Amino acid sequence: MTDPRIENIRAAAREVGADWALLTAPDSCAYAGHVAGIETGPSPFDGGPTAVLVGEGMFVTCNELEAALAPKGAEVFAYESLGFSDLTPLPGKYAAALARMLGRAGVRGTVAIEAATCPAAAAGLIAERGEARAFDGPLARARAIKGAAEVAALRRCAEATAAGHAAVPGALRDGVAELRAWREVRLAMEMAAGTRIPVAGDFVSGRERTAAIGGPATDRMMRVGDPVIADLAPRIDGYWGDSATTTVIGEPSAALAEMYRRTVEIMDRVRETLRPGITGHDFDAPLRTMVAAAGYANPVHMGHGIGTSVHEWPRLVPGQEAVLAPGMVLMVEPGCYHPEVGGVRVEQMFLMTEDGHEVLSPFDIPAEMPRA
Amino acid sequence: MTDPRIENIRAAAREVGADWALLTAPDSCAYAGHVAGIETGPSPFDGGPTAVLVGEGMFVTCNELEAALAPKGAEVFAYESLGFSDLTPLPGKYAAALARMLGRAGVRGTVAIEAATCPAAAAGLIAERGEARAFDGPLARARAIKGAAEVAALRRCAEATAAGHAAVPGALRDGVAELRAWREVRLAMEMAAGTRIPVAGDFVSGRERTAAIGGPATDRMMRVGDPVIADLAPRIDGYWGDSATTTVIGEPSAALAEMYRRTVEIMDRVRETLRPGITGHDFDAPLRTMVAAAGYANPVHMGHGIGTSVHEWPRLVPGQEAVLAPGMVLMVEPGCYHPEVGGVRVEQMFLMTEDGHEVLSPFDIPAEMPRA
Repeated sequence: MTDPRIENIRAAAREVGADWALLTAPDSCAYAGHVAGIETGPSPFDGGPTAVLVGEGMFVTCNELEAALAPKGAEVFAYESLGFSDLTPLPGKYAAALARMLGRAGVRGTVAIEAATCPAAAAGLIAERGEARAFDGPLARARAIKGAAEVAALRRCAEATAAGHAAVPGALRDGVAELRAWREVRLAMEMAAGTRIPVAGDFVSGRERTAAIGGPATDRMMRVGDPVIADLAPRIDGYWGDSATTTVIGEPSAALAEMYRRTVEIMDRVRETLRPGITGHDFDAPLRTMVAAAGYANPVHMGHGIGTSVHEWPRLVPGQEAVLAPGMVLMVEPGCYHPEVGGVRVEQMFLMTEDGHEVLSPFDIPAEMPRA
Repeated sequence: MTDPRIENIRAAAREVGADWALLTAPDSCAYAGHVAGIETGPSPFDGGPTAVLVGEGMFVTCNELEAALAPKGAEVFAYESLGFSDLTPLPGKYAAALARMLGRAGVRGTVAIEAATCPAAAAGLIAERGEARAFDGPLARARAIKGAAEVAALRRCAEATAAGHAAVPGALRDGVAELRAWREVRLAMEMAAGTRIPVAGDFVSGRERTAAIGGPATDRMMRVGDPVIADLAPRIDGYWGDSATTTVIGEPSAALAEMYRRTVEIMDRVRETLRPGITGHDFDAPLRTMVAAAGYANPVHMGHGIGTSVHEWPRLVPGQEAVLAPGMVLMVEPGCYHPEVGGVRVEQMFLMTEDGHEVLSPFDIPAEMPRA
């Protein structure tokens, strides 16, 4: 049985009149089944971005270290990189492998490309055989509806975030650096994954840092009374989890406890209103109004899709005309921020169903602010 | 005073007849002074790779989240990304910003580009104004000679690796998962940096995993008698550290102790022979012979340059005709591997001087195998 994701890629290509699609973003390659590491940036052994060609069959151009990662059934055009029998520069080896791949696949006519990442080298080779046409929009929309295997992958990521959040209260302590607490939270997620994993998100403590919404863990000493936002986004086998909790060390100030309660009220409203058939705009607007009515700011999105990218279409923001649909997996992350109080954010993962939603994040948002 | 790195970029561009250089790889942008995060892959808020234009002045096209990272004096063309006043797709916003930048800079004639990463969108815009010409080779060679500020940055990275290695023996224990030990080692480096940092490298335990040279920390339980290779490569403020030690839990077998001694002998030879004026090939060859003569395998490079990429030109491998020169910073990492014994690798950072070298890694390689 064909991976339904490959059919989605083909359908998106057809929307721009193309029989072929050339994927060059790491998250799109992961969507096509080629999951490469991202945690240390582009590989110094790359002569160009790994390229997955989908049409009549599947083909992959990548450096030799990634050859074993190619999806089953794909024909691989790997070029020497860590090896040293040929010390010519990698971009030339990459372009040669790409040319072999396009020739072997018999590419001609229109090729759908990703405008943000398609390298000039690939565009030039395609121009010799036909025409390149961007399909970023159609691909993003096709990726938004998740298949059963994708939902299972995202559920596993959500479970890893829950393991991370469970480690938060025990890791927070007066006089301890954020990084020391972060170490425990990260370990819990890595043990859930069984290996080192990339983790995006935020780990910020104190009034000033939480009011600024996000940032990485630093050597800042946490103190009694500090709110701590843990926004955890691990990548496991190419898919991402995401979710946020806010915890206080000791007792919250009255203002902070109030801010927390208001945020939970908004999340309660999310559970009442999130359903297919409404636009992103109409879902976002009343929540945004609640934040403002409570006297807080929230200058960022209310949520977003998630999959092989931690942040996918559709964004849940003002002006979003896209209609929410069954099969979408959405992060919803209401937050309240105030320079004199700090910040509170809670976030869970939701699978859109035929008539409402299912919460994929296996943890609850307590009614009162959690204390460490 | 102009950053000498900018002069190096200009000189490399002139080698291909260009008055302008457009940098599009994250490590090249970091070299030009624009250090963006890499730890979670390309940003979902990018419409294309951040581009630094160097010519008469400096110009940067990037998403709005990176605007504050642009080097001092650069004119920034940031496009909306996390914001949501305009929900049109990011690649269009990126291309528009790039076009504004090229127009404002008055680019015409030949533009040096990075073949591996220059996006089709940028190549198209350049073609309207002149001609794009790849300068990956000249740029790599120009980057190999480090200025004083770069050596200081690399020294700081080497110090962070030393902090990591110092944490290794205390973190290794029978019945403990690699990931639990890795957490302590990583924390030591992150505390040295003051914040979360990307870390490349390897953390492998046991005969089988060390014989396979490398890999990330996993949930494998470490056992008495296991060798553990810690190859630590943190990125701090855009520059990388790198270095390796091998430790045994408890007592090494006679074969493992012997493998360690042989590896140290090779590193002793490195200290005797590493000097400017010899080719990479001539430096590598006798070391490689020592590995083979001892009955071990080492199928990988003997070392490599390091800077804003963890792995830079020149590679220290057979066939490398490049001559080692003062100002280069080189990693040297002799290793011995055998399927029935395991693997041992030691690695330090060397600054090439006028008549020899200085070891930048502030830790010693003990003559006998370190024990946890």
